[in-house]
Amino acid sequence: MDYKKLKNEFQTPFYIYNFDAIKEKFLELKNAFKARKSQIFYAVKANSNLSLLQMFTKLDSGFDCVSIGEVKRALKAGAKSYKIIFSGVGKTKEELKLALKYNILYINLESEAEMMLLEQVAKELNTQARISIRVNPNVDAKTHPYISTGLNENKFGVEIESAKKMYIYAKNSSFLEPIGIHFHIGSQLLDLSPIYEAASIVAKLVKELKSLKIDLKFFDIGGGLGVAYEKGDLEPNLYEYAQGILASLNGLDITIGMEPGRFLVAQNGEFVCSVLYEKHNKTKRFVIVDGAMNDLIRPSLYEAYHEIYMPYNQGEESPCDVVGGVCESGDFFARERLLPHTQNGDIMVIKNAGAYGFSMSSNYNTRNKVCELALENGTIRLIRQRESFEDQIALEEKFIKV
Amino acid sequence: MDYKKLKNEFQTPFYIYNFDAIKEKFLELKNAFKARKSQIFYAVKANSNLSLLQMFTKLDSGFDCVSIGEVKRALKAGAKSYKIIFSGVGKTKEELKLALKYNILYINLESEAEMMLLEQVAKELNTQARISIRVNPNVDAKTHPYISTGLNENKFGVEIESAKKMYIYAKNSSFLEPIGIHFHIGSQLLDLSPIYEAASIVAKLVKELKSLKIDLKFFDIGGGLGVAYEKGDLEPNLYEYAQGILASLNGLDITIGMEPGRFLVAQNGEFVCSVLYEKHNKTKRFVIVDGAMNDLIRPSLYEAYHEIYMPYNQGEESPCDVVGGVCESGDFFARERLLPHTQNGDIMVIKNAGAYGFSMSSNYNTRNKVCELALENGTIRLIRQRESFEDQIALEEKFIKV
Repeated sequence: MDYKKLKNEFQTPFYIYNFDAIKEKFLELKNAFKARKSQIFYAVKANSNLSLLQMFTKLDSGFDCVSIGEVKRALKAGAKSYKIIFSGVGKTKEELKLALKYNILYINLESEAEMMLLEQVAKELNTQARISIRVNPNVDAKTHPYISTGLNENKFGVEIESAKKMYIYAKNSSFLEPIGIHFHIGSQLLDLSPIYEAASIVAKLVKELKSLKIDLKFFDIGGGLGVAYEKGDLEPNLYEYAQGILASLNGLDITIGMEPGRFLVAQNGEFVCSVLYEKHNKTKRFVIVDGAMNDLIRPSLYEAYHEIYMPYNQGEESPCDVVGGVCESGDFFARERLLPHTQNGDIMVIKNAGAYGFSMSSNYNTRNKVCELALENGTIRLIRQRESFEDQIALEEKFIKV
Repeated sequence: MDYKKLKNEFQTPFYIYNFDAIKEKFLELKNAFKARKSQIFYAVKANSNLSLLQMFTKLDSGFDCVSIGEVKRALKAGAKSYKIIFSGVGKTKEELKLALKYNILYINLESEAEMMLLEQVAKELNTQARISIRVNPNVDAKTHPYISTGLNENKFGVEIESAKKMYIYAKNSSFLEPIGIHFHIGSQLLDLSPIYEAASIVAKLVKELKSLKIDLKFFDIGGGLGVAYEKGDLEPNLYEYAQGILASLNGLDITIGMEPGRFLVAQNGEFVCSVLYEKHNKTKRFVIVDGAMNDLIRPSLYEAYHEIYMPYNQGEESPCDVVGGVCESGDFFARERLLPHTQNGDIMVIKNAGAYGFSMSSNYNTRNKVCELALENGTIRLIRQRESFEDQIALEEKFIKV
């Protein structure tokens, strides 16, 4: 990649995504499940850029959305409504109403209270809401506490016994139509055995429901596939993954739904910035760059590791902290990382930043959101314009009294 | 406060700031230092709403900015350029250039490399840059590691000996004019003795510089004044604060600069949201609200405590987690908090959210940024409009191919 040329044209910092590599990974996952009916619902929250979603649309991907905003993004990018599902613990009445109006594939319910509200909304609209229920198999995913979701102490999903009652209620309601079941026990799993365990528990419920004449069409196994952020991380084998899931579905005729997000995009995106200053004191070496925690918050928020690459520097390496210009000690990209000596203007590439990078970015310290680029079929193009100061104040400017 | 009326008019969630109370606190701080020449520079990063900045302008406040965006905000709000200072470890060449063009009061330097760049920029513009240097007195502020800034292991400031060399260099440069000195050892300090210790160390340097004919005009003591977030927190006494600082300045004729941010606005702002669902499982009770970590990230990022108040609920309390709708276990406002039973639509007030609330907010999960309100002279008005989906996609929409 000619980063110098990109910097000349677009300035730094920016995100760049490799659409070709994302497509490849999508097809690899799809292929692993080819023995069965399956549907990938890309998890929009990982990276919600419209051009990326449009690319997924062309691959016939579905979309897993966690807000009506994400549903609107998917539709804007050309998704068919019957390829969209809507998850999340905090859907508002307005969001449920719109989801029904858009006639999306199904709504993933996360609580009994939500089901009651959805039934009421469906009644008001005189329609039938297709639903799935997120069940919580209480399996420990052994991942970062912030990205573990399958335990009772987490806010997600409902317990197996409650789910069963909900399905029976929904089956008897004129305004609800149960068509799916969903689980997602955590993110960034490198060992998938907890997913298989969860799948078995959930499949058992599907069979029980079948005997009650509740015949589900979608077995949504969520996301959670880990990616190798650090050297030595071993990514799950997709064929073993498929086998592990299929084993639990023995005898069930059901479409497998998948919600990969990070898995598809994390490693196929980079955050590219430039060195501003090197700074040394008695005890530490700092490399200060023009990107910051407002652009990429994962290191601050999760102590996440991102590989760093200096494309034009091959000098002797010594440990340093790579930090941004935001006024917080928590604003760092790496600590005690081995890097060559740098100079003002040197390009630095923060790797594996395609997921939960731009989508979590903010305007903290009145910093403008960066631009996003895409590499596709060998050419690079802008897919989101860099924000300006004027963009940033547009919604408050008119309220100052002159 | 009639929260129901506000909810009817503006919907939830929203931020509301009490401008009258902020003014009062500003004057209290100013008054504590009335025995000496002093200038308050409001730390814009805490809350950068333009209407708030305009209110500070009218109080004759100065502004401490950490990006050129914040400088532009201050100017937009009517600040005089000679009341603006510019701090931060990662100023770009372009930002330094603009700061000189705007002719602001001074630039707070954070490294030798930055000084060299500023000198070059001033030379290019054929002007003299007024500077201050942020010194790092290596005093432990004993606060959250992410908001501690005065140790050598932090990225901020330069050590005393290096600062001295920098002042001498600047004094001899035709393009630099040293006029201030700055320190800031950490945020949210309830015990101010580390600040007094730092002030003594820095004042000693000021005296040494004086003997070298480097006569500084501003002694910028930074911010860091803690506020009582939790019951039992004891806020520093402002008169003791002033005395503690003045004691170290014995014999020096110098203007005291202060950079309060959190101290002025934190307790005078609330984040108001509504309950969506209550959810119970075997082990936990969850109250799910329509605000989320994208709106207020302090609990997730710093495990910060925010008092929660249910204005229209006085029932029996039991422990619950208050969580938002974002798809992360880290999306919570409180854990194991005692709250009455709630119902859909109940109003919940997250207190002490005036600082580092909206300014750190993001669009994660494609959630629109909330609106901001101000209470001033007994009336409430909108000071930032709620974002729409269209606002959110404006910079990327044109790049999808139709």
